[in-house]
Amino acid sequence: MTIPDAPLRIAVIGNGFMGRMHTHAWRTAPRFFPLGREIVPVVLVGRRADGAAAARDLDWPEYATDWREVVGRADIDVVDICTPGDTHAEIALAALAAGKHVLCEKPLANSVAEADRMVDAAATAPGVALCGFSYRRTPALAAARAHIADGALGEIRHVRAQYLQDWLSDPDAPHTWRLDRDRAGSGTLGDIGAHSIDTAQWLIGDDIAAVSAVLRTFVPTRPPMVTQAGIGGVAGAGERLPVTVDDAVAVTARFAGGALGVIEATRLATGRRNANRIEVNGSLGSVAFDFERMNELEYYRADDPAGAQGFRRIQMTEPEHPYAGAWWPPGHGLGYEHLFTHQVVDFVRAIGGDVDAAAPSFAEAARVQRVLAAVTESAANGAVMTPVHRRDDEGRAS
Amino acid sequence: MTIPDAPLRIAVIGNGFMGRMHTHAWRTAPRFFPLGREIVPVVLVGRRADGAAAARDLDWPEYATDWREVVGRADIDVVDICTPGDTHAEIALAALAAGKHVLCEKPLANSVAEADRMVDAAATAPGVALCGFSYRRTPALAAARAHIADGALGEIRHVRAQYLQDWLSDPDAPHTWRLDRDRAGSGTLGDIGAHSIDTAQWLIGDDIAAVSAVLRTFVPTRPPMVTQAGIGGVAGAGERLPVTVDDAVAVTARFAGGALGVIEATRLATGRRNANRIEVNGSLGSVAFDFERMNELEYYRADDPAGAQGFRRIQMTEPEHPYAGAWWPPGHGLGYEHLFTHQVVDFVRAIGGDVDAAAPSFAEAARVQRVLAAVTESAANGAVMTPVHRRDDEGRAS
Amino acid sequence: MTIPDAPLRIAVIGNGFMGRMHTHAWRTAPRFFPLGREIVPVVLVGRRADGAAAARDLDWPEYATDWREVVGRADIDVVDICTPGDTHAEIALAALAAGKHVLCEKPLANSVAEADRMVDAAATAPGVALCGFSYRRTPALAAARAHIADGALGEIRHVRAQYLQDWLSDPDAPHTWRLDRDRAGSGTLGDIGAHSIDTAQWLIGDDIAAVSAVLRTFVPTRPPMVTQAGIGGVAGAGERLPVTVDDAVAVTARFAGGALGVIEATRLATGRRNANRIEVNGSLGSVAFDFERMNELEYYRADDPAGAQGFRRIQMTEPEHPYAGAWWPPGHGLGYEHLFTHQVVDFVRAIGGDVDAAAPSFAEAARVQRVLAAVTESAANGAVMTPVHRRDDEGRAS
Amino acid sequence: MTIPDAPLRIAVIGNGFMGRMHTHAWRTAPRFFPLGREIVPVVLVGRRADGAAAARDLDWPEYATDWREVVGRADIDVVDICTPGDTHAEIALAALAAGKHVLCEKPLANSVAEADRMVDAAATAPGVALCGFSYRRTPALAAARAHIADGALGEIRHVRAQYLQDWLSDPDAPHTWRLDRDRAGSGTLGDIGAHSIDTAQWLIGDDIAAVSAVLRTFVPTRPPMVTQAGIGGVAGAGERLPVTVDDAVAVTARFAGGALGVIEATRLATGRRNANRIEVNGSLGSVAFDFERMNELEYYRADDPAGAQGFRRIQMTEPEHPYAGAWWPPGHGLGYEHLFTHQVVDFVRAIGGDVDAAAPSFAEAARVQRVLAAVTESAANGAVMTPVHRRDDEGRAS
Repeated sequence: MTIPDAPLRIAVIGNGFMGRMHTHAWRTAPRFFPLGREIVPVVLVGRRADGAAAARDLDWPEYATDWREVVGRADIDVVDICTPGDTHAEIALAALAAGKHVLCEKPLANSVAEADRMVDAAATAPGVALCGFSYRRTPALAAARAHIADGALGEIRHVRAQYLQDWLSDPDAPHTWRLDRDRAGSGTLGDIGAHSIDTAQWLIGDDIAAVSAVLRTFVPTRPPMVTQAGIGGVAGAGERLPVTVDDAVAVTARFAGGALGVIEATRLATGRRNANRIEVNGSLGSVAFDFERMNELEYYRADDPAGAQGFRRIQMTEPEHPYAGAWWPPGHGLGYEHLFTHQVVDFVRAIGGDVDAAAPSFAEAARVQRVLAAVTESAANGAVMTPVHRRDDEGRAS
Repeated sequence: MTIPDAPLRIAVIGNGFMGRMHTHAWRTAPRFFPLGREIVPVVLVGRRADGAAAARDLDWPEYATDWREVVGRADIDVVDICTPGDTHAEIALAALAAGKHVLCEKPLANSVAEADRMVDAAATAPGVALCGFSYRRTPALAAARAHIADGALGEIRHVRAQYLQDWLSDPDAPHTWRLDRDRAGSGTLGDIGAHSIDTAQWLIGDDIAAVSAVLRTFVPTRPPMVTQAGIGGVAGAGERLPVTVDDAVAVTARFAGGALGVIEATRLATGRRNANRIEVNGSLGSVAFDFERMNELEYYRADDPAGAQGFRRIQMTEPEHPYAGAWWPPGHGLGYEHLFTHQVVDFVRAIGGDVDAAAPSFAEAARVQRVLAAVTESAANGAVMTPVHRRDDEGRAS
Repeated sequence: MTIPDAPLRIAVIGNGFMGRMHTHAWRTAPRFFPLGREIVPVVLVGRRADGAAAARDLDWPEYATDWREVVGRADIDVVDICTPGDTHAEIALAALAAGKHVLCEKPLANSVAEADRMVDAAATAPGVALCGFSYRRTPALAAARAHIADGALGEIRHVRAQYLQDWLSDPDAPHTWRLDRDRAGSGTLGDIGAHSIDTAQWLIGDDIAAVSAVLRTFVPTRPPMVTQAGIGGVAGAGERLPVTVDDAVAVTARFAGGALGVIEATRLATGRRNANRIEVNGSLGSVAFDFERMNELEYYRADDPAGAQGFRRIQMTEPEHPYAGAWWPPGHGLGYEHLFTHQVVDFVRAIGGDVDAAAPSFAEAARVQRVLAAVTESAANGAVMTPVHRRDDEGRAS
Repeated sequence: MTIPDAPLRIAVIGNGFMGRMHTHAWRTAPRFFPLGREIVPVVLVGRRADGAAAARDLDWPEYATDWREVVGRADIDVVDICTPGDTHAEIALAALAAGKHVLCEKPLANSVAEADRMVDAAATAPGVALCGFSYRRTPALAAARAHIADGALGEIRHVRAQYLQDWLSDPDAPHTWRLDRDRAGSGTLGDIGAHSIDTAQWLIGDDIAAVSAVLRTFVPTRPPMVTQAGIGGVAGAGERLPVTVDDAVAVTARFAGGALGVIEATRLATGRRNANRIEVNGSLGSVAFDFERMNELEYYRADDPAGAQGFRRIQMTEPEHPYAGAWWPPGHGLGYEHLFTHQVVDFVRAIGGDVDAAAPSFAEAARVQRVLAAVTESAANGAVMTPVHRRDDEGRAS
């Protein structure tokens, strides 16, 4: 374990989109939040031999290409894993075994078996282990969760989540590792559906007990990619490659406490760039959110006077709102990156002993993995309602 | 059959909310649309002995209490059925047998067997028979359908429909006939879910081939109603009555042509008064609609220039839009009632031989009934994907 | 005067867009509101010799071409004036002199002098005289006014009104009588700016004391119209005609009670079909409205708890809302025409002695006319702040 | 002048809200944009003797309290001025005289005379001098400007700008330096109205030639502040202090090219936290923007097909959009702070010789100052239309 108040020395594994995002978060967090200890970025690990220049641009003092030589180093306290899902388990297990704190991008793993090994390792390791379901750090969603936890919405009946993107809408959008089951584990399901499932469970503080699900691949082959650009890239000539993951997923979920969940995720919702939406209806009120307008929360209270009831559009930039007080005056919004800054803040607080900040744990993230497994199982069995299997030692999601 | 260009003499059966709405539509239609023949409201039929005064207020020259004495009268050309679903079949069969034109409110019947009898009768009767899925007459939805039929959206992948109301959100909202399976056939499913299903099939011009569904009743008993008010009413003392229908339904649908449908309907979505929403995503574009903003259509085209792509908020009040040209200048919106006026217009046009206006036929409405039956069957069998059974003589939905 | 509870016999003068709208309102009102007396449409007056067929389509038993022969007839109780503004005074004076009730479309007249003569006549005539500022009958605006009158918004600081249309945006849109000062009195100012001014004064219950204003004509000539269509029409060949009225008006207003008004109206706001918007900010709250979403009111309360403050989007379709209870269930919206139905209802109630319904009186409408005159005067004098002249006998706007 | 490609060494003067924002921008810019040279933050200057700790938290290696000792230092290349307006001129003149590059927060100065001295100094100084109208760096606004410059909106008729805040809505909100004319120069006018004026002129590429204006102070005294918090603070007991600046401003503007501007700014629009809105209507199209939804641009094209015309809601997160390509994938929004990062990027590019990035120059910012002066003059003279005086040597705004 690190010495309290000693500097926290960081290694980020993975230099893709997420590695860059985490890098920025580590740099930004200490300038806006009182963390109680210094953050020292030490080394960025990538697979490309020629990644050193990019690492320098991101202000990393050191670049390495083999994570195995990094995760156990004595000058590292935190291992932050931003690689594709197929490598999470191996890296996390090594880092935990070396006594490091571990922040692991979602999904926790590509299978329940892997996830369980990670949960077991985290249970006995000295380091703090968290999974990066970053959307939990959206002020609007954190506030919505607080309202629900306070009972402001009464008994929860409906959870309605959609995660709609469109970067695969064009059938000639190129193939990427995200469309390869071996690398990505699943397609839309694990990539963005996992966010919806985690958000849904966390928001209402209840686990999904059973699911009925359909998976669908609309475009079975795609041209090879010649240049990566953003999350997609530019297609090239050559034989089309098979898409071995789902393009879309539809889930009807039964929560343990009785709520009815309807969850849909797709990358082919033409015109929807990143519509990560969720709505919760309770007996006393409702909340609704769309990440395309991430600085707003829609909030309805049934106890507003008759004739004056309506969804309030709340700008989530007030000092009273989670995380928001550290930033700008009301009405001056935040962006996507701030979720990652908040995540780093909570992770450091968790390392400092703040129990509330220490979520989602690997165990909680593994429960998402179990829902994903039940989704896959249900889809393979004609959508029949399928229980989410739980470990014997498992409690209820916090 | 009536003589061409002779006056069209109308009987409306049912003097509840829908009877009133249809009455207004019959009065309004000829003042704004060239119908080619005079409309003559003749008689309103209600069950209450004391309904004559209300009928007079609605400008009916005659009031009757027994539909059996009305539907065969020689001075009636049209029988417009606005009663609860359990009486539709009997009235429609009698009216068709008497050679009348029949407009029947949705759902067509409370069972597939009843619906089939109505289809068979309509097939051989001389009169025109249409079912009142009124939302088809929303300018925005009619325009959306035209875009889809023209191929503007390309290959259709997603249909996403929600019909959210909240008048049963309060567990002490009173019991009504709509919560009694014997009267209503089903709950949310047949009342508003049927609208979503019809709209979805009609919009993309394709049938639902199979469904996975969950039905849920959140509030199993409710207090008796003492006074009706609007669609709900005022609860009284006395023993709570059992709710024998569903409060909510969630459906994952496979369309014959491959599209994936996610349909949800509920009367407990607190804060959502009448959010009848539907979105369709195709390979080339998307449309989105919410009846709470019925004068708007959101329309996305993937062939807009890069950087200038976005959902257009189109005000559906232009002369180019379906039905809208008969009304007010651009930007001066329509309301709920206008759907019923448009329905009357199309019905009269269908009587006049306009094939395009003659929809939905009883056969088409029966297909909705078959989807409802498959939903019920799937829900009873653990949500397993269940085919929608079709009649041997049935073609594809137009 | 008419006998209480006797039928109310109606003549509508003018068979253009407004005549058609008023006709429909007279037909519709008694079917949805308990008026206490029968409404009997008697005669429609138009200028075209060949208007009889159109009148029949609108269900008028009689058509006439000379209003002078109609307004004094013994079988007429109400004269409803829907002609261009240059004829309002003459018709209204004749009708009032004949003891009729008069409903006169806005603006009341084309000049203050005319308006004053009408006010004087109305003061001594036995009939009820109202001016048709129809937007007052929007449920959202009527509810907003009630909130303000109740003090829910505290001290009023800001009134921000925009009336944006675009049917003259194209420089080749044809010339109409609305662009001819002799016929129309003014352009955008009197046509739609007058609505904003009336709404602003009525909403906050205060008079505009002084104005600074700019008038602007962007397109000085237009091609002649060959075919009328809607509010505009189709342009033809031939010499372009001069536009002798304003295209746009901008007003900064000082209310008697201290509020600051910013009012803008134009017919060249490309893409804005009928954006009649108004927002009021008080020390305790705000309301905002846009007629393009006429079934919604945005309502903000500063006493909502910190962190849960936001504009509520209220659907103005609840039984508690003005007028709305007579119509459909919550969430089933109204359209433009319903304002006119509500106006007829209030007019009939005013005839029956309901003081609250008897607004705007001719005196109140003349005050709008005085503001228009001050606007014109200010614009002619370099926008200098110009007092609104009031009659000596005038009280404060109710 | 600095050596090309040498590190750029930064001093920020002012450690309030803006100093913190600029600090973050200097740190962030090089990590996301290829600047071509290293950025080296050297010293933060504040007035408080005890500011060193806060400076350290912001990652500044050095803290100083006297700007006079800093602006001429040999180890400084850039002086970034984030102090209140009354000190801008003195600091900027000293820095320019010392050969530094100067970035000065808006408004450029508290008077035209000061501004002119700054313009003159900048004209002959070797350093680049820019003024920080940060909203120009919003991707949506930069894209809107490009559309207008390309002629996509045709001839511009209307510019409609509102800058609405509400932090002074409560009459007991405390007094701050922003309410003191000696410190702030003016109130809402210079603070946020200046943004609207600059945005309006820059967006359509035209200067305001004359203005008619009203200034208003609704709350003449306020309690003293005991604790600053965000942009406002906590009020204390003690005698109320006089507010010597405007609370609100309303401007009607005539642009040199003929467009009509209506501009309103206030800090008492209850419920509007930071509604910096602008809409431009041209003969061929329109754009509309609201900073509360800063990641969206509304864009209307009159050449869209009839029936399919509507404002497109464009998410300004595409690679094609100004600045956006350096950040996250489409649909992953930016926040307020990113404007300042973009500003730093453009400033560094301007230093590197990029003429397009070198705006607004001091001369351009002085023109905003001249409009402010004309506003003040007009308001003092009964709102009479007042020309904006220009320097003899001045060209047209770029």
